[in-house]
Amino acid sequence: MAASIRDIRVILTAPAGINLIVVKVETSEPELYGLGCATYCYREETVKNLVENYLKPLLVGRDPADVEDLWHLMNHNAYWRNGPITGNAISGVDMALWDIKGKAANMPLYELLGGKSRPAVAVYRHADGKTLEDVAENVQKFLDQNIRHVRIQWGGYGGKVDSFNKPAGAPDGVYYNPEQYTRDTLKLFGYIREKLGYGFELLHDVHERLAPIEAVKLAKELEPFRLFFLEDLLSPEQGEWFRMIRAQCATPIANGELYNNPKEWDYLISNRLIDFIRVHISQIGGITPARKLAILCEAFGVRTAWHGPGDVSPIGHAANIHLDLHHHNFGIQEWSGFKPEAMEVFPGCPELKDGFVYANSNPGLGIDIDEKTAAKFPCKTDITRWTQTRISDGTAWTP
Amino acid sequence: MAASIRDIRVILTAPAGINLIVVKVETSEPELYGLGCATYCYREETVKNLVENYLKPLLVGRDPADVEDLWHLMNHNAYWRNGPITGNAISGVDMALWDIKGKAANMPLYELLGGKSRPAVAVYRHADGKTLEDVAENVQKFLDQNIRHVRIQWGGYGGKVDSFNKPAGAPDGVYYNPEQYTRDTLKLFGYIREKLGYGFELLHDVHERLAPIEAVKLAKELEPFRLFFLEDLLSPEQGEWFRMIRAQCATPIANGELYNNPKEWDYLISNRLIDFIRVHISQIGGITPARKLAILCEAFGVRTAWHGPGDVSPIGHAANIHLDLHHHNFGIQEWSGFKPEAMEVFPGCPELKDGFVYANSNPGLGIDIDEKTAAKFPCKTDITRWTQTRISDGTAWTP
Amino acid sequence: MAASIRDIRVILTAPAGINLIVVKVETSEPELYGLGCATYCYREETVKNLVENYLKPLLVGRDPADVEDLWHLMNHNAYWRNGPITGNAISGVDMALWDIKGKAANMPLYELLGGKSRPAVAVYRHADGKTLEDVAENVQKFLDQNIRHVRIQWGGYGGKVDSFNKPAGAPDGVYYNPEQYTRDTLKLFGYIREKLGYGFELLHDVHERLAPIEAVKLAKELEPFRLFFLEDLLSPEQGEWFRMIRAQCATPIANGELYNNPKEWDYLISNRLIDFIRVHISQIGGITPARKLAILCEAFGVRTAWHGPGDVSPIGHAANIHLDLHHHNFGIQEWSGFKPEAMEVFPGCPELKDGFVYANSNPGLGIDIDEKTAAKFPCKTDITRWTQTRISDGTAWTP
Amino acid sequence: MAASIRDIRVILTAPAGINLIVVKVETSEPELYGLGCATYCYREETVKNLVENYLKPLLVGRDPADVEDLWHLMNHNAYWRNGPITGNAISGVDMALWDIKGKAANMPLYELLGGKSRPAVAVYRHADGKTLEDVAENVQKFLDQNIRHVRIQWGGYGGKVDSFNKPAGAPDGVYYNPEQYTRDTLKLFGYIREKLGYGFELLHDVHERLAPIEAVKLAKELEPFRLFFLEDLLSPEQGEWFRMIRAQCATPIANGELYNNPKEWDYLISNRLIDFIRVHISQIGGITPARKLAILCEAFGVRTAWHGPGDVSPIGHAANIHLDLHHHNFGIQEWSGFKPEAMEVFPGCPELKDGFVYANSNPGLGIDIDEKTAAKFPCKTDITRWTQTRISDGTAWTP
Repeated sequence: MAASIRDIRVILTAPAGINLIVVKVETSEPELYGLGCATYCYREETVKNLVENYLKPLLVGRDPADVEDLWHLMNHNAYWRNGPITGNAISGVDMALWDIKGKAANMPLYELLGGKSRPAVAVYRHADGKTLEDVAENVQKFLDQNIRHVRIQWGGYGGKVDSFNKPAGAPDGVYYNPEQYTRDTLKLFGYIREKLGYGFELLHDVHERLAPIEAVKLAKELEPFRLFFLEDLLSPEQGEWFRMIRAQCATPIANGELYNNPKEWDYLISNRLIDFIRVHISQIGGITPARKLAILCEAFGVRTAWHGPGDVSPIGHAANIHLDLHHHNFGIQEWSGFKPEAMEVFPGCPELKDGFVYANSNPGLGIDIDEKTAAKFPCKTDITRWTQTRISDGTAWTP
Repeated sequence: MAASIRDIRVILTAPAGINLIVVKVETSEPELYGLGCATYCYREETVKNLVENYLKPLLVGRDPADVEDLWHLMNHNAYWRNGPITGNAISGVDMALWDIKGKAANMPLYELLGGKSRPAVAVYRHADGKTLEDVAENVQKFLDQNIRHVRIQWGGYGGKVDSFNKPAGAPDGVYYNPEQYTRDTLKLFGYIREKLGYGFELLHDVHERLAPIEAVKLAKELEPFRLFFLEDLLSPEQGEWFRMIRAQCATPIANGELYNNPKEWDYLISNRLIDFIRVHISQIGGITPARKLAILCEAFGVRTAWHGPGDVSPIGHAANIHLDLHHHNFGIQEWSGFKPEAMEVFPGCPELKDGFVYANSNPGLGIDIDEKTAAKFPCKTDITRWTQTRISDGTAWTP
Repeated sequence: MAASIRDIRVILTAPAGINLIVVKVETSEPELYGLGCATYCYREETVKNLVENYLKPLLVGRDPADVEDLWHLMNHNAYWRNGPITGNAISGVDMALWDIKGKAANMPLYELLGGKSRPAVAVYRHADGKTLEDVAENVQKFLDQNIRHVRIQWGGYGGKVDSFNKPAGAPDGVYYNPEQYTRDTLKLFGYIREKLGYGFELLHDVHERLAPIEAVKLAKELEPFRLFFLEDLLSPEQGEWFRMIRAQCATPIANGELYNNPKEWDYLISNRLIDFIRVHISQIGGITPARKLAILCEAFGVRTAWHGPGDVSPIGHAANIHLDLHHHNFGIQEWSGFKPEAMEVFPGCPELKDGFVYANSNPGLGIDIDEKTAAKFPCKTDITRWTQTRISDGTAWTP
Repeated sequence: MAASIRDIRVILTAPAGINLIVVKVETSEPELYGLGCATYCYREETVKNLVENYLKPLLVGRDPADVEDLWHLMNHNAYWRNGPITGNAISGVDMALWDIKGKAANMPLYELLGGKSRPAVAVYRHADGKTLEDVAENVQKFLDQNIRHVRIQWGGYGGKVDSFNKPAGAPDGVYYNPEQYTRDTLKLFGYIREKLGYGFELLHDVHERLAPIEAVKLAKELEPFRLFFLEDLLSPEQGEWFRMIRAQCATPIANGELYNNPKEWDYLISNRLIDFIRVHISQIGGITPARKLAILCEAFGVRTAWHGPGDVSPIGHAANIHLDLHHHNFGIQEWSGFKPEAMEVFPGCPELKDGFVYANSNPGLGIDIDEKTAAKFPCKTDITRWTQTRISDGTAWTP
């Protein structure tokens, strides 16, 4: 390829009210550019700063075809590596380089990677509600749309909050009660299974809101309800506790939306301590490491379930879907859907039809950005009150 | 700090009928002294002897600011180390040195350590009774006071004693029957959960009165009752049996009130075999080692639940509360309350209000001793009949 | 403490030609402020961006005394955690809060932490040279200054580069040859030990420039030369290979200047796979986590050897020295010295005298910044060509 | 047995300048009493206090025949257990009870235990010296006396001290330099083996003066000199490091003079990490636990080498010898000999003849105390400056 990298720009936009970070890599060929997702919605200015001040001067003039080499160059250039800022910045460039390569080959990414293993991608949706009846109703809505995997929650993450006694002077924050949440969750699963039966898949996201032994208990107690998987049960620091869960129950385990360092996942996979890896692809540095991670998982019988919430840009969702279509050991895809404004800013979004998501067959990631429309939706700095989470005595807790 | 250690004195007092041992370290600065708890209630004269005859001459003239160095000096000075007498003697001095440092800094200890992680400390209380109804009534009293964690026992430790067959010539002692105790305990939990529901936390203290496999059985059988934790299930010598418990159930485990040697806890923590560490802080040598132990636990997802019975002096309780307020991985605090006489002897006691214990914000440990009043409550030597425990055939057993 | 955080500012300065990042936390009390090191010299603007745009609004108005709670708040606030940008930003604030606490207590930090375990800090220096004779001469210079620990290198990291055959089109970069480097290093140790004897300590830094099995070989082959330690032998991703080294030789191992995630070190320490932990304190988030890490190490017989190169600010060096003075399991401190310009910008630098480094006894970290002078030495963006390291066939390699 | 315990008295005496602690248990039968060693030479008053104030009232009136039951009673009576004060106090009584039982049976202890496995006990002696030549000369003296096992040291424990650089303000203490000690020790072994050959056994005592990895190195480097064993290489806290030593060399390992808690030895023995157990019998609680420990060792192929220095009373030495004569898996006995004054105070001492130690065949331990003579040698409180050990930078270190 004769092209070289001419410019790298960061576009911030929030069409659905969530900060999205897009990296555009432009080449010496007028029409040849790529787009990547670098969305770390709580630190948008910092990621932009890193891309523009450090990655751009490192890469301009180099050959965009050398994705593998440039990924290592970006990864090692600042000596210290990993972490959410660095991971997302590299991801923005990495995905864009893959997008360029796809365009240069005139192939959608899934073709470039080795072709489809399936025509479309099964997804799971999230249903919650204030009452048990609300949750059941929302589950039913998804079932009516032919969605066969539904993640359920009574109240928000950490459960509904009944009043509980706090000490005087308890700091401001989002409070929850692990014990109440655990009991309510068991009640919820009992209710839903009794009401709607076992003919579809249920999932649950703990969002790391339990102490390790509480997590073991919950995994075990949920076993009779036959979950498709139990999600983000343990924090990255406490992954060794999965050994105890494995010794006590067969509840399928999906973990990893917080991971951004290989040491957080390598022993879990090679020791078969989890069943699904669900990293946020831009957090770990883009398509290059995600593809390797999927392949590592395949060797150990672990499937993929990439993180797919609203704080992934449609470009990141497109990357997820291309990987899902290709990798043999794909498991399931979290899916949050797109608001109309987001689809206007990002033409070419993957589409959900009858329970499955389809990618288009355009070259590369198959998705573009309308920068003018994007500019209509500026980002707002968010110091994320929702992660100022505390348990009932006032202790700051893992969100 | 220009001060040097001028004198070290031991004060014995029993305002609530239990022998308490307090160490007072006086410095060259007239107003600057510290107080520490060295309470080993069954060996008060021996601890006093060690402090006055050996630690005092070792330390007088040294700089009280060098807490870490002096702790190691005390720990190694007699070559052989650890054990209850040595641990308590060192603790008395160690806490007093921290108290002095807090006063020198004009900061409460929790500030010195790095500040509060919560405004107050959640506690558990102990409810027992001769009948199931009595226990339920006593639990309800605590719930009415906004206490959310209650430890229950039917009868005393080892359970209520029905008549059972003893061989002729069975020695004098406190008899109990492990099998009866186990069955009664299960009956108790069933009764309390049925009567009072699951909306609060239950705990239970085995007090090491079971053979290992009986302990495994009980932990497993108690699982459906959703304990906050099961306490002192195995003796220090038999900790490896926790592996079997971990393989069979998810009942949370708290252990350690008998520990006084790092080899008793290090493998339990680094192998995640327990969920709460509950050493008696003065037994292990004071605040210096307790702080390190809490931090070790944090790395492995283990929380603290320091021993807090009546045979800890109010100074020791204050130390517990300061550590509880600071350490992020605090779990719960055992709380036994203070009699009026104890509060008179020890002005500045931590206070229980509406389910939580609060420390005052005076410098250091924030608690003092009124030596004149203390002298009104002399200690009595106690060779502790209650630990002359035997099972039904007359065998001396772990108390 | 009645003070609240009023402002947080980032000061960039490069008095010795290396970008340094300092965080200043100002409180509501006019004279009460703290300084922290956030030096990630290759990403200075990005770290500054994170502190000013996100940590400042999170923290202003809060109580600076709550160091532990604020550390957890900063760590969790952006949901994803760890990594070099986040670690350094948090460190800048964390050290400043400890500095404030020391000033509020009117105590140097080592007193606040529990006092000195030694009066001063033994250090190691780095000696290299183009020829074996040059290295020997530089070692002798340090010995003449009473330095007893010297790290040696023939040429720069990765060794001296003789000409070797590269393929056509090999990319630009810093080339080295692992096999030549290994052989030269063995030659160097033979030469130095023969010439200067065994009466002092030798160290060596591999800087992760070897494939794992090459690292095993080198560790084993260096064993007869009795190193004090072998440094940064394996990359963070390949730490499990230390098991093979442990099975084959007793060369002491120091690792960790690249670590910034607990999963990189926790298993190495709890499995006793290394002998010295040498993280860069600002990379892991400051004094709060470094203190915990030191205590974790103590339980497993591992000693500290904090990273102390030129790309740590004098404030960071002061933090190292305070921790070194306090922690019982201190091993050795890397020391690179200060240029006069740095000492002018940072009044109160620790001082090297007769082989040992001494901290002053001013409150807190005992070091200040002269902002006017600092402004005379602006930073320059550095995309660090030296980490664009490649082996002889052109492969980008761990720097 | 119709006798009951009438009185328990503690006798302190220092005939050889070292504090010795003897417990005398008197029974209701006029002539029937027993003697036990409770020697913790650095805490003589504290041990005495414990025996007289707490064990005596617990035991008076009970049947001295129930040794096993009384041992458990003493061990559990104060709830917290183990440690040097408690261990020695219990040992004093326990040995005396065995002595009584022997007298009641009119049998020497070795007969009571099951008879002799050998007629006499092989011992090792300690040779040191200021110069290599001095050590060699002292070794030769022992060889000339038909001693076949000699422990060697150049200088005192921690080696000879050459001048080295200390930081200003280094505290008072006994300084040593681990690296110098290690090199000197290797030199010593080379010298002795070259000069005196391989036709006798060499031993060495590290006295825990090395960091763990230094200990691994030394064990490995000493391997060619074919030691009978390497003694007290690792502190009780760091026993897990023996796994690394086992993986790297076949130097026989003897450890344990500091042990006083079963968790310090149980995993070492059941994992075969040491070859000789060498506890100080009075430290672990006397003959009752020592006999069990020897039997445990036998099951795993580990031999005994009880601690036998000058700070064991002749009564304790007699207990060692009786156990040595009986237990099948006896290995070797440390022997320090008796001064004439000690033999005068303790009639009936075991005797060394032609390289072996012989017990007399009197009933029980076969040794008595002349209380009048004992009183001529009062104890002096010793805060043991020799354990105020520091390494060269001033850090207090394991003695």
